[in-house]
Amino acid sequence: MARTFGDIAVNPPGTTYANRTALAAAGVHKPLQHGISGAAAEGADSIVVSGGYEDDEDYGALIVYTGAGGRDPTTGHQVSDQEFTAQNLALVKSEAEGMPVRVIRGSGGEPAFSPASGFRYDGLFRVEESWLERGQSGFIVCRYRMVQLADDGTPLPIPTTVPTGPAPRAKTTVQRIVRNTEISRRVKKLHNYACQICGARIEIVAGAYAEGAHIRPLGRPHDGPDVEANVLCLCPNDHVRFEFGALVIEDTLGIIDTAMGQKVGTLRTVVGHKIDVAHLKYHRERFDLTT
Amino acid sequence: MARTFGDIAVNPPGTTYANRTALAAAGVHKPLQHGISGAAAEGADSIVVSGGYEDDEDYGALIVYTGAGGRDPTTGHQVSDQEFTAQNLALVKSEAEGMPVRVIRGSGGEPAFSPASGFRYDGLFRVEESWLERGQSGFIVCRYRMVQLADDGTPLPIPTTVPTGPAPRAKTTVQRIVRNTEISRRVKKLHNYACQICGARIEIVAGAYAEGAHIRPLGRPHDGPDVEANVLCLCPNDHVRFEFGALVIEDTLGIIDTAMGQKVGTLRTVVGHKIDVAHLKYHRERFDLTT
Repeated sequence: MARTFGDIAVNPPGTTYANRTALAAAGVHKPLQHGISGAAAEGADSIVVSGGYEDDEDYGALIVYTGAGGRDPTTGHQVSDQEFTAQNLALVKSEAEGMPVRVIRGSGGEPAFSPASGFRYDGLFRVEESWLERGQSGFIVCRYRMVQLADDGTPLPIPTTVPTGPAPRAKTTVQRIVRNTEISRRVKKLHNYACQICGARIEIVAGAYAEGAHIRPLGRPHDGPDVEANVLCLCPNDHVRFEFGALVIEDTLGIIDTAMGQKVGTLRTVVGHKIDVAHLKYHRERFDLTT
Repeated sequence: MARTFGDIAVNPPGTTYANRTALAAAGVHKPLQHGISGAAAEGADSIVVSGGYEDDEDYGALIVYTGAGGRDPTTGHQVSDQEFTAQNLALVKSEAEGMPVRVIRGSGGEPAFSPASGFRYDGLFRVEESWLERGQSGFIVCRYRMVQLADDGTPLPIPTTVPTGPAPRAKTTVQRIVRNTEISRRVKKLHNYACQICGARIEIVAGAYAEGAHIRPLGRPHDGPDVEANVLCLCPNDHVRFEFGALVIEDTLGIIDTAMGQKVGTLRTVVGHKIDVAHLKYHRERFDLTT
């Protein structure tokens, strides 16, 4: 039974459920007891936030969530350490891949954002950070900073009501956004997360990290297709070089360093991933129309 | 005279100006004739969109902008090729650094989004992509996909009114967001964009690309300070490894590969950039609280 990431048909955000059985029957959150639905190799597809963990913080579009395990079933207090394994690791995999996580709030959660009774599906979030810390109990807990997504998959602004610590709120802008699609993930798996340009594989606790680069970009005005033949599996360094045209690929898959004007290697390929040379040409011409 | 990136005091978005002289006097867009205010080494701080270029496309929160040069001053038609030099290259630098660009609309632009007369400051955008293409004239033009920013520096959703080409709109999520602050840029300059972990410097047409990594993260619940002592200059690959705890840094600046449990190098330092070891400890403990 395949795990579904993203919205579940006929269950839009705002849909309510009387209990965990109804939530599971709808396919919105399948486990009847676990707060996290997921597997380490695939990622986590949904979580329930219902006030079960004393360390959870819910600010609406920003949730600081706590992993599973180590709680006394009667009191709900943390009585032993958590680790990044099983479902806790699945949320790190979701972070590494940029996969959307369905968030369901239960009536036991933060009153300002939770339903008065039962459960409510509140839309898609992304895991922005994950780490360990000592919880209020003194035991180690897994923690996740989760931000709600707009319809186009980008994060919503952080609510200004979120309290800040001693440091003033820093004025940030976004230097780089790496987008992800189901097709990108498939291409990365085909290459086992090894960069098609340099062969590097970035090892992290959740397995490996790579980025899917659309050769002809998605969106206006390029309108590149989201198909495997238009995606490369790259390490972040070569993805930056490719996006800025420092590297382009010949029809014969030679890798050209455009500053040096010479071939520096050959694109690595795997059986089952065919690249459309028309997209390679589109990419080359974005940076040099004279050839 | 330093170039100011971001909003100009007492000139909030929505402020209107009778003409280019008033716009320049306010410091919102200083050049009296050029559409792009910027220098290749620093980036572009503002642009004017006023319908001067036949290839410009304005969809509100998304603008597909055209570079400067090659136009007949009388007809406004493109009569020769543009290149990524001077102000055109400045916008690529802004893209590489994630610097905000002030957008001013003039009355000659797309009627749905432009003022009826004069000029209006419409807020901050980011350059998301830059490339060359053949314009309607048949000559080569520099092009930029620019997206409006919310108050917290993240991009606003792409308007659903933006037309799409033959490929259906792909469902994307965000795999990775790299944030940028003025302090990050300062640290990157101190290191001349060389990675403090591996020494790599990613060369692109706009100079070099590196990322500023806040050792103790900004924002709830870490509330790390935006100061040079809390920022490392890293290549994207090592930034990913650092963010996921695959690499941590000892107080003595030894670089530890946490999967191997051994030292793999020493952090590169430069005079004038002192790192606060308390932040290195905070980062280490995010991934291992047992030591």
